[in-house]
Amino acid sequence: MDQEIMQKVMDEVMKRIGGGSVISPEKASDQKEVPTASVQNLVGVTEYVGISEGDTIGLVVANVEPMLHEKLGIDKKFRSVGIFSGRTGAGPQIMAADEAVKATNTEIAVIELPRDTKGGAGHGSLIIFGAEDVSDARRAIEVALKDLRRTFGDVYANDAGHLEFQYTARASYACNKAFNAPIGRAFGLIVGAPAGIGFVMSDTALKAAEVELIDYMSPTKGLSLTNEVVITFTGDSGAVRQALIAARSIGKKLLGAMGAEPEPATTPYI
Amino acid sequence: MDQEIMQKVMDEVMKRIGGGSVISPEKASDQKEVPTASVQNLVGVTEYVGISEGDTIGLVVANVEPMLHEKLGIDKKFRSVGIFSGRTGAGPQIMAADEAVKATNTEIAVIELPRDTKGGAGHGSLIIFGAEDVSDARRAIEVALKDLRRTFGDVYANDAGHLEFQYTARASYACNKAFNAPIGRAFGLIVGAPAGIGFVMSDTALKAAEVELIDYMSPTKGLSLTNEVVITFTGDSGAVRQALIAARSIGKKLLGAMGAEPEPATTPYI
Amino acid sequence: MDQEIMQKVMDEVMKRIGGGSVISPEKASDQKEVPTASVQNLVGVTEYVGISEGDTIGLVVANVEPMLHEKLGIDKKFRSVGIFSGRTGAGPQIMAADEAVKATNTEIAVIELPRDTKGGAGHGSLIIFGAEDVSDARRAIEVALKDLRRTFGDVYANDAGHLEFQYTARASYACNKAFNAPIGRAFGLIVGAPAGIGFVMSDTALKAAEVELIDYMSPTKGLSLTNEVVITFTGDSGAVRQALIAARSIGKKLLGAMGAEPEPATTPYI
Repeated sequence: MDQEIMQKVMDEVMKRIGGGSVISPEKASDQKEVPTASVQNLVGVTEYVGISEGDTIGLVVANVEPMLHEKLGIDKKFRSVGIFSGRTGAGPQIMAADEAVKATNTEIAVIELPRDTKGGAGHGSLIIFGAEDVSDARRAIEVALKDLRRTFGDVYANDAGHLEFQYTARASYACNKAFNAPIGRAFGLIVGAPAGIGFVMSDTALKAAEVELIDYMSPTKGLSLTNEVVITFTGDSGAVRQALIAARSIGKKLLGAMGAEPEPATTPYI
Repeated sequence: MDQEIMQKVMDEVMKRIGGGSVISPEKASDQKEVPTASVQNLVGVTEYVGISEGDTIGLVVANVEPMLHEKLGIDKKFRSVGIFSGRTGAGPQIMAADEAVKATNTEIAVIELPRDTKGGAGHGSLIIFGAEDVSDARRAIEVALKDLRRTFGDVYANDAGHLEFQYTARASYACNKAFNAPIGRAFGLIVGAPAGIGFVMSDTALKAAEVELIDYMSPTKGLSLTNEVVITFTGDSGAVRQALIAARSIGKKLLGAMGAEPEPATTPYI
Repeated sequence: MDQEIMQKVMDEVMKRIGGGSVISPEKASDQKEVPTASVQNLVGVTEYVGISEGDTIGLVVANVEPMLHEKLGIDKKFRSVGIFSGRTGAGPQIMAADEAVKATNTEIAVIELPRDTKGGAGHGSLIIFGAEDVSDARRAIEVALKDLRRTFGDVYANDAGHLEFQYTARASYACNKAFNAPIGRAFGLIVGAPAGIGFVMSDTALKAAEVELIDYMSPTKGLSLTNEVVITFTGDSGAVRQALIAARSIGKKLLGAMGAEPEPATTPYI
């Protein structure tokens, strides 16, 4: 009978305080699944494609209204756009967009990085694909939404901050536009928050393997006032991976010293 | 008796976890009322006028200290200022300030938009009115604090983001200063977060009615790194309202697909 | 027996909703202690020095990797760096760094202020010390981590915002680099969020004592889009303290009118 009361009270408490608000903002996105067809029908909006990790929504517009199209500043032939917009994360979305652009007949028109992560230390993201046909735009968004579960695999967070590691054997147009990654070459990205952890991870990565530094970014230099240090680098694919793995090892220890054991958002892929 | 225990436990739980912290940041402001005289006496500070929606405080300074006055860069004759400062929201505060400036003998001296919303995706606001007399400054703040309950009426939020719609039949100086709204004409504002939802709402609005786009703003273009797309527009008052209503309809469906049903902060007015 | 059930339920509730998430973000850091040697061994990373208030981590790198060193743009002789990186607070960290630079053979190489405070209204901080020898860098970080408990003493917060007051009888290189404080002179700093409270505190401070205003900063002018007004000033040490005390008195009343009584993060020192 004690048990019964307990359950009743717990249900009431959970109902009144709301599920979402008691999860740490950096982890709130873990719960989302790539939507099924039934969800899509439920929304009942032709522009809706789906949602995924990091409070990310995927949308399409078949024929962008002319005044709005002009403001975007993209080629007139791209009358359709695919929109990939997330509250938490920029790296995962950019890497997923990179796969999408490789797999479809689209171009990356816009990459803008707001300061967000729902109270966390990092970016959100707005990525717009241009396409001549709406079916191409939709396909790009579908690929990106699906791939986002993979690219969130090496995002680790606790209440004190987050770490992110990305790798591709062959960078494409999204990585090039966002990070100046040389197209067709192996590319690595390291993000650490608070920023000091990013700095030490960067130092470790560059010492661990023979890689070529593309860029070093800090809160007011190249980032949107996030509390991060970010480096991007290229090189031999083995070296790029080795640098990432070394950084990940030290980063998890340092972030873990500030709070709980940092957990990956999905399944590590590097 | 079960009921009694339940109530006792709930009271204890609510006391220990605190009211504010378990409500999603975008909704935390719902609880506030325009303060009564007794609250004001309790504060015991002559500069205090009141508080309202969106963690907004209204203040006046009768004679701004000269060094500070110079830093503000406003006309010397405005020795008094009214200060309207909110954690959550810029649009609602600007629209309320627009009514205040119409109703009083004041000018809009400063509009600055921090990145805030207490962990949400949008702006906070700092609006300073200049006045020759402190009674005018106080009156402007009183009008703005009161009108803020109305202008939060078409702000909708859930844990994933927020939507905002504003309408005035006749824009005045605050809308002009903040948004380049033509003075005396109907004016509409649409805000969507995450940004992708703002984009689709903008496209829908511009297709729904014959309105004239004033501006298109995105996270790094015209906004304070918020995760929003914002459009402003003018036109015939019926067309402006029609565009707003069309955007609101699709926006609520899209944001609702990412989380709970988006609820208005107060009572919709459009 | 009611008592027993109550306790059991409360334990369960607290376990399920998690300790961290029900504390206001501005206060979450109160729980941290300056780490002991055993913690350090637990981390097992030579770069780790310790953690302190405001989710701040202290780190050292003995020999910064050459490509990274070049990106920092600091003198080549400073091959070692000390890194002082916090999620919540810039003023407390800068004041603590000021003491560290006085006490050690180091220089302030970098001060960058992200928009952070974990969903609060203010900054985080990234401060990098340059040193010719890693033992000097380590010593600087140790001094700064320890002093941070003091400099968080006049930081007051509630769910609606925060107030900060800092004082030094003799400003050194960190205050000079971050705030243009004249070296060797008394220096005061006032921060208020939401910004309107900072404005009224600034006005009060400048009227309360004969001090010289160094700078006035607002969300988009000199700050990283925080929802704050900040002033910095110098003068006779008694006057600087008098101005700070007057501002603190009115600030606590105004912020208290918006929410709970603002509590100091540690022990007030002014």
